[in-house]
Amino acid sequence: MLSFEITARDGAARRGVLRTVHGEMETPGFFAVATRAALKGLDPRAARAAGVQALICNGYHLAVQPGPDAVAAAGGLHRFMGWDGVLATDSGGFQVFSLRHGQVADELKGRRRLPASPQGQADDDPMEAVRVDEDGADFRSYLDGSRHRFTPENNMALQRALGADVLFCLDECTPFHVTAGYTRDATERNARWARRCLDAYHELGMAERQSLYGIVHGGVYPDLRRWSATEIAAMGFPGFGIGDCLGETKSDWYGVVDLVCPLLPDERPRHLLGVGEPDDLVEGALRGIDSFDCAMPTRIARHGQALRLGRRRYRLDLLGSACRGEDAPIEAGCPCSACTRFGRAYLHHLLKAREMLGISLVAEHNLAFTARLLARVRDAISAGRLAELRAEVVAEAA
Amino acid sequence: MLSFEITARDGAARRGVLRTVHGEMETPGFFAVATRAALKGLDPRAARAAGVQALICNGYHLAVQPGPDAVAAAGGLHRFMGWDGVLATDSGGFQVFSLRHGQVADELKGRRRLPASPQGQADDDPMEAVRVDEDGADFRSYLDGSRHRFTPENNMALQRALGADVLFCLDECTPFHVTAGYTRDATERNARWARRCLDAYHELGMAERQSLYGIVHGGVYPDLRRWSATEIAAMGFPGFGIGDCLGETKSDWYGVVDLVCPLLPDERPRHLLGVGEPDDLVEGALRGIDSFDCAMPTRIARHGQALRLGRRRYRLDLLGSACRGEDAPIEAGCPCSACTRFGRAYLHHLLKAREMLGISLVAEHNLAFTARLLARVRDAISAGRLAELRAEVVAEAA
Repeated sequence: MLSFEITARDGAARRGVLRTVHGEMETPGFFAVATRAALKGLDPRAARAAGVQALICNGYHLAVQPGPDAVAAAGGLHRFMGWDGVLATDSGGFQVFSLRHGQVADELKGRRRLPASPQGQADDDPMEAVRVDEDGADFRSYLDGSRHRFTPENNMALQRALGADVLFCLDECTPFHVTAGYTRDATERNARWARRCLDAYHELGMAERQSLYGIVHGGVYPDLRRWSATEIAAMGFPGFGIGDCLGETKSDWYGVVDLVCPLLPDERPRHLLGVGEPDDLVEGALRGIDSFDCAMPTRIARHGQALRLGRRRYRLDLLGSACRGEDAPIEAGCPCSACTRFGRAYLHHLLKAREMLGISLVAEHNLAFTARLLARVRDAISAGRLAELRAEVVAEAA
Repeated sequence: MLSFEITARDGAARRGVLRTVHGEMETPGFFAVATRAALKGLDPRAARAAGVQALICNGYHLAVQPGPDAVAAAGGLHRFMGWDGVLATDSGGFQVFSLRHGQVADELKGRRRLPASPQGQADDDPMEAVRVDEDGADFRSYLDGSRHRFTPENNMALQRALGADVLFCLDECTPFHVTAGYTRDATERNARWARRCLDAYHELGMAERQSLYGIVHGGVYPDLRRWSATEIAAMGFPGFGIGDCLGETKSDWYGVVDLVCPLLPDERPRHLLGVGEPDDLVEGALRGIDSFDCAMPTRIARHGQALRLGRRRYRLDLLGSACRGEDAPIEAGCPCSACTRFGRAYLHHLLKAREMLGISLVAEHNLAFTARLLARVRDAISAGRLAELRAEVVAEAA
């Protein structure tokens, strides 16, 4: 069972410690995304040294490969992947439904997989591989096309076999382009699934070692958000996630979080799903968020993008020709093992030459950057100066 | 300047220490192949911890990208790539000429790029991108097709800019399928180039910090090998490589090494180029070889193959279904950070899921395996029991 202690406050922001049977993390904190039980090329030992406190793996990917039995046979996910710190799994619902709704990239590019009329039933086109009904969702394996089914109950059994410290309820995460009616139906079903997840979680005796987070839905609709937050909060989960569609712009999600956080029990941890840009971390913390997860730091590393302050969008393009002869590290003074050992010219060379080490080193820096920024956030909360830090971080990006 | 001290002998085998301005290596020892100044995904710090004593980078690849000026501007290859141990560069001749002659794989598959009549001139077909004359060789960049030229003199300037501890003369490495006449012409020209390399090396004042190895050629022809060994030995290089075509079978190269080693000065180090299977290391050491380099340990990692004794061809196929549910590490008792932290089931999963970490961990094990086997070779030499170790290693592979 998880315990959460709040040690300092600054307005709505809270600093605290989340304790699990596999260790603790300081909050506001960050879960690095290890989708398939690995941070791509980055060794977990190096990630730990870079300041990574916690990882989150994906229930959908691990259900398909290697399968929950293989992980359970190895003694659970911590031992399987050699991670002795805080570990989360998400239900896999997001991935299952993104087969149905399309990826965010599809949304940005105007590609829609879901029929305009939300009947809740996809046809049998392999591209429309997800069928959802009141009981659960059928989907196909991305590996071999085999049929799988997630229900709230079997998803809890899956996450029990994986054995992570923090779990999330099975849910459908609606995209931005669906109608208000579709979002309402999904939000209401998600609340019924949350109750079933919680019941299964208790029946399976998971509460002693694992903590299940309920997820607040409702898309960009304030009345649905308010309804969902109230319903989910009343169920008494050990922690809460804020999920579903957060809107198109940053101010959209600021509004969602501003609305939801006051409706959640103050003493329980709150996780903002899938958000992790540098300014997001500060803005989320200001509004009372305790943890974040985001694939961005490792994903942009694969495109040669390093995180730093004082740059547009907090990015340094290591593939750019300006880095070719540059002896300086990504960020002067950064204590990460990429910045203390290597100049930009070497990283540029590795990325140009497609040497995998380049991606791993940039990922290591990006995770170290994120960890250090959150350490500054925590210190600012203790000092009552988080607004000042926000001004600095946001100004640096301009 | 390098110093080489022999500390124990067992028949023709020698144990020793090679000292350079950047550290020392125990011999018989192994240079791990970091072609483009990186061991693919493996962090040099992890490689060092796995027992890697020395790296060898490729002059051709680094000449093309990032170029010698970029490396020199970063303070040389050691600093550029964050490696503070023994470092070698090869001239790049092998890669230049493999454009002309085709790869070993081409040879095995019966594909021939070189015209049957060895005129020493390739035509202007982009696939026959190498022109060789008495003065040097023209070749095209593998990156952008731009023209480059290697001569013995500019190749020494290149290797001076890179700044490695151990250097090799520019040479043409002949393949197995050429005629005896072609091999004789190339062997004689290689000897003339070796003299020019040595002269340039001294004129450029490199001898104080860098050590140039002359390379013995002659393919599979005993008279040419004898002639080349005698000529190259007489030039007085700080060390010697045994290169060129070593034949089709292992007994072919045993014969070459048996013939060549007694013709080289006893007190100078001898490097066998491009050889590194487990039995090769023992067989080479038995014949008086002091160092090896080979891309195999890192290359086979990319195909999910782990090195171990007690297996056919010293390989364990981690992609095989037998590893899917196997909790045991690659090799029980192996102290490498892959074997002490992860079971085969996890490595199997990573490799199946194409997570880069899987390749890095297997490469780490394979280099640790190679380092440990050579430590056993050195101890066996000290104990006068290298023949016993050979019997054990060769028997295990049967």
